[in-house]
Amino acid sequence: MSNAQSPATSRRSERSRQAILTATRELVSEVGYGKVSIEAIAARAGVGKQTIYRWWPSKGAVIFDSFLALSEVTGQEAALPDTGDLAADLRLVLRATVAEFADPDFERPIRALNIEIIHDSELAIQYREKLAAPVDEIKKARLRSAQEAGQLDPDADLDLVLEFLYAPLFQRWLLRSGPLTADYADSLVETTLRAFRP
Amino acid sequence: MSNAQSPATSRRSERSRQAILTATRELVSEVGYGKVSIEAIAARAGVGKQTIYRWWPSKGAVIFDSFLALSEVTGQEAALPDTGDLAADLRLVLRATVAEFADPDFERPIRALNIEIIHDSELAIQYREKLAAPVDEIKKARLRSAQEAGQLDPDADLDLVLEFLYAPLFQRWLLRSGPLTADYADSLVETTLRAFRP
Repeated sequence: MSNAQSPATSRRSERSRQAILTATRELVSEVGYGKVSIEAIAARAGVGKQTIYRWWPSKGAVIFDSFLALSEVTGQEAALPDTGDLAADLRLVLRATVAEFADPDFERPIRALNIEIIHDSELAIQYREKLAAPVDEIKKARLRSAQEAGQLDPDADLDLVLEFLYAPLFQRWLLRSGPLTADYADSLVETTLRAFRP
Repeated sequence: MSNAQSPATSRRSERSRQAILTATRELVSEVGYGKVSIEAIAARAGVGKQTIYRWWPSKGAVIFDSFLALSEVTGQEAALPDTGDLAADLRLVLRATVAEFADPDFERPIRALNIEIIHDSELAIQYREKLAAPVDEIKKARLRSAQEAGQLDPDADLDLVLEFLYAPLFQRWLLRSGPLTADYADSLVETTLRAFRP
């Protein structure tokens, strides 16, 4: 047996893989993590169960990858812009994040994933290691460049800076406790930068 | 028929009510909101189903009241102390809150309730109106007194002040993304007060 694939086979594989990931995200949104089955994913993606098991060892693994893939697609907010103006760059990113969370189609699968993470401490560790921590590192690189440019307290705890920037938005979105607007994004940036002024 | 009850009957009623609320909280923690049934609550509380339906119209109503009752029992953090020193008062309250969230027995039912609120937008509105908003009002009264004493920016948006104080803790607890310590509580108070300095 050879692992070499023809270009046509490779394109078919990639199409199947994407179909499986899309079907998984849709099903998690519709019925919740707990009720999604490999059978249902296979049926919706138009593949056999064995195709899924060839690539993923478990239901948890395919669901997790389906969200990883989503974050790769929409991961532009991970790479913070660096125009040299920290406040302007953060406003841009926070406004985009607020707009995403205010969009029902976008937020629904992320909400379903968060519910599972909040419920399941093992999944929380996986999520932290594979997704949240790498994204935070990218954001912290931008904050470090602002520290060097004298725009942010050089002694600031950067994990705390990120929590102040994002946690109020996260809470407001999760609990639906207030409006998600561009003004709100701006006030998160302004308040956080006031707290961590050099 | 008369509504008058003898003192003994009234004591028995109160005991049944408390047994129902306790059984409800325990079951929500153990099996999750979705799987709790009125039958199971009645069995664990040692009452008949009709006793529950006499006081509550639905499963949702008894579950909600069971958490309201919990917040009345442990509601001391709602009434913020007022010694005249805002930083000291907030440190006391935030340290107590952090300690509660770090206690598995305490946090488990609150986590179960939050998962339901995050999932169910109708329950989120009820929670906001009946529980979160009144508690926030009590906290804001303390912040207003600090504004009058010149310890907090008189123009500060008090909802935003509360979000900066509590949302990082809420997120860290929900996602298990960092340690819940007294030092962390202190840094939330210090950072928030720096942002909203007069």
